[in-house]
Amino acid sequence: MITFRKSALLKAMVKIVGPEGCLVEDADVEPFVVDYKGIYRGNTPVVVRPKTEDEVAQVVQYCHKHGVRVVPQGGNTSMVGGSVPDASGNAIVINLARMNGIYEIDILNDTITVQAGCTLAQVCDAATASGRLFPLRIGSAGSCQIGGNLSTNAGGTAVLKYGNMRDLTLGLEVVLPDGRVWTKLRGLRKDNTGYDLKQLFIGAEGTLGIITAAVLKLAPMPTARSVALVKVPDPRSAIHLLASAKEIAGQAINAFELISPDAMSLVLEHLRLERAPLEGPAGWQILVELTSGGGQQELDEVLMRVLETAQEQQLVQDAILASSNAQIEHLWKIREEISDAQTRAKGSVRCDVSVPISRVGDFIEEASARVLEIAPDARMVIYGHVGDGNVHFNPLRPASVDAKDFLSKFGDAITEAADGLAVSMEGSISAEHGVGVAKRDELRKYKSKVELDLMRSVKRALDPGDLMNPGKMLPEDTVPYPHKIC
Amino acid sequence: MITFRKSALLKAMVKIVGPEGCLVEDADVEPFVVDYKGIYRGNTPVVVRPKTEDEVAQVVQYCHKHGVRVVPQGGNTSMVGGSVPDASGNAIVINLARMNGIYEIDILNDTITVQAGCTLAQVCDAATASGRLFPLRIGSAGSCQIGGNLSTNAGGTAVLKYGNMRDLTLGLEVVLPDGRVWTKLRGLRKDNTGYDLKQLFIGAEGTLGIITAAVLKLAPMPTARSVALVKVPDPRSAIHLLASAKEIAGQAINAFELISPDAMSLVLEHLRLERAPLEGPAGWQILVELTSGGGQQELDEVLMRVLETAQEQQLVQDAILASSNAQIEHLWKIREEISDAQTRAKGSVRCDVSVPISRVGDFIEEASARVLEIAPDARMVIYGHVGDGNVHFNPLRPASVDAKDFLSKFGDAITEAADGLAVSMEGSISAEHGVGVAKRDELRKYKSKVELDLMRSVKRALDPGDLMNPGKMLPEDTVPYPHKIC
Repeated sequence: MITFRKSALLKAMVKIVGPEGCLVEDADVEPFVVDYKGIYRGNTPVVVRPKTEDEVAQVVQYCHKHGVRVVPQGGNTSMVGGSVPDASGNAIVINLARMNGIYEIDILNDTITVQAGCTLAQVCDAATASGRLFPLRIGSAGSCQIGGNLSTNAGGTAVLKYGNMRDLTLGLEVVLPDGRVWTKLRGLRKDNTGYDLKQLFIGAEGTLGIITAAVLKLAPMPTARSVALVKVPDPRSAIHLLASAKEIAGQAINAFELISPDAMSLVLEHLRLERAPLEGPAGWQILVELTSGGGQQELDEVLMRVLETAQEQQLVQDAILASSNAQIEHLWKIREEISDAQTRAKGSVRCDVSVPISRVGDFIEEASARVLEIAPDARMVIYGHVGDGNVHFNPLRPASVDAKDFLSKFGDAITEAADGLAVSMEGSISAEHGVGVAKRDELRKYKSKVELDLMRSVKRALDPGDLMNPGKMLPEDTVPYPHKIC
Repeated sequence: MITFRKSALLKAMVKIVGPEGCLVEDADVEPFVVDYKGIYRGNTPVVVRPKTEDEVAQVVQYCHKHGVRVVPQGGNTSMVGGSVPDASGNAIVINLARMNGIYEIDILNDTITVQAGCTLAQVCDAATASGRLFPLRIGSAGSCQIGGNLSTNAGGTAVLKYGNMRDLTLGLEVVLPDGRVWTKLRGLRKDNTGYDLKQLFIGAEGTLGIITAAVLKLAPMPTARSVALVKVPDPRSAIHLLASAKEIAGQAINAFELISPDAMSLVLEHLRLERAPLEGPAGWQILVELTSGGGQQELDEVLMRVLETAQEQQLVQDAILASSNAQIEHLWKIREEISDAQTRAKGSVRCDVSVPISRVGDFIEEASARVLEIAPDARMVIYGHVGDGNVHFNPLRPASVDAKDFLSKFGDAITEAADGLAVSMEGSISAEHGVGVAKRDELRKYKSKVELDLMRSVKRALDPGDLMNPGKMLPEDTVPYPHKIC
């Protein structure tokens, strides 16, 4: 479809963004058509790299006029193939990396206004340089971009205290599917003058428009940080520990991360660490972090009180309290490297589920039992942000089994068992990773017809030509998938 | 339009909700067609009072089939005429007061699931009885209902710490304009599986469907509460005091309320208090409240540190720290009675604006100057939640001038001056009260064409027949207003 007018398209793009803003050679285009997990490969006639929202608008206007489909792309770190084009080669990629300006930091308003192509790390650094915290904390901070964080409503390890990307956003600028620009770059905490339109674009995975800039909330920079690694009898105890910790430490709790015995042993192998931080068998462990604007000693005492109370309630078997920043970093490194350890180990089935916090223990117990019926030797790599109900439930092949064999034999059954159970517990099959292409057909199974109809109504209302990020998120789409590489 | 088939309509309604669920006599209907401020009066053939979401669905199905318009109504406490029918008599009122069940409190998940007709006070009490806090705090708690709180994205005095109603909501059940029920009564903090549809209905003022139930977030019950009344040189100093307080007290700050000199003298008259809490001329005052899950003495010390630091920076002229619950209640009473004092005084122009927190001082200074040019003797009753940028800017007639004369002579000019200035400072003309009918035509002036188009697209997508709360919020509507009584 695009082929016969490819030269006209390229000419138009070059006219808008200049030759340096257009990538067309295979080698140049490569990083933008393969997802970062190396699972999906698509095609595109051109990767367009605009520098301003006006250039984005002009590109989209052209596409709207000529029926050209558009894949908006930030750091291309989607976990679900959401940021690469499909295999048809009918869609251009608009990559926002060159739109990485910080417009303004308003200290008294506690806001930062940035272009969508800023990396998360860049925004965090700019906030820090102004004595403020931008609290979103996810592993890909150095490469993921704000536009992608917004479009996927990114979560991470500090949602418990600060909320997810939706909660951190006050204003947006969006290029709509017809190329018009909706600008609402305002830093207001209260504004009840009609539908809160920014909510439509946050978490929409680029299917309703292209976010080009945002006003984000900042928080006071914590002055104290206390971290402990805690061994608990089982996940259920962890949830009671959380409830008890909330009563004692309230909003000081910044992170509450679960690590299963198999997740711990995997990451220790990966990091070539001979000793676990806590002695004895790994058991279920919780990384708990408190932060505050007060004194370090005071906060350490609060954490001690949390642990002592939990010990009295027999919710804790062992614990280590980090006594230096180096120790804090070490404990966090263990937690944060689990994901990479898995990627390197190959052959894990990644289920990013959430359930009500009260059901986390039930979920882990029952899902594990079901998986071990399906694949009795699977390593139960389970971790995540259980403080907000989010469990990364990622059964891994035993060392003796080939990764591809394991995935092809058990992958679908494990996914179905975990996702089905989560939904039956009023949970979600994608807590923070989004839908993209990886989860899009599953929606048909787990969403009600009414909900799918509502989603389609919204899509049709804003993007009647189905031009924005085709084939992503909405399950009825007939656009071909990207090729699945592995 | 409705008249000729009124009997059929009534018969159908009685069939669904029973005779006791239908009000038709003028005297019975009266409280449901006049808004609580006594400004707007509408007409309706029937007030329907369903008891279940299924009854709501059946009523709406009937209305959808027969083109009957619907006004959803909770406690009818709208500040902007959003909850009464228009003068045409073409719309039925669906009042949700009888749907006031508390479905579930999940302590470990920190959630409460309630029907939309629960009053806010009822939800707060249920939470308290379970040792949890439902943190929304607004004056009308005893009569406003959760459905209305959701539909207007209610704010109030604790937004600074806990966010507004949008931030407090995890799940919804909604009867759509075609009578289908979208049920998502789940208590998940993370769920990225498609458009976050609940965001559409929160703050939509009943124009996209009827919220029938919700899952709301609870917070740990604070164990300490420290309150001070502080005299500051001017509103600009107040904002610097806030920034300084945030650095010292962080998320402990629960409320930060401004009271202008005229607001203080008005409320003292109203309460027949001879003495103000702080001696000397009233000046600009701030009611600041900290809450925490820790000890009272510790929290008092934090507040003392806030005040001492501010004194060193010459941001504070005088202060009183409440030393008992009775004193705390007294200080809050003064703040909370300002609104009633104004209502009783009659003749105030109520502007509910927000600006970035950093602009609050500029706004108050400049807006006051403009108003005093328009009406040199106006009493500058200014107060509100400046901790979140929300200013109730309500110039009041001088005692010697008749209320109606003042409003007819100056009302529009004052509104235009305040709202226009707020918008020029990237602010909002309705921070928390919503649009209803009172502000709907102003939107035409202050919203961009792109934004109005987007709003209309959303409305058409969900309610193509324009049946839900006609004439509210969307400025292009041709439905007649309710009669303006005064």
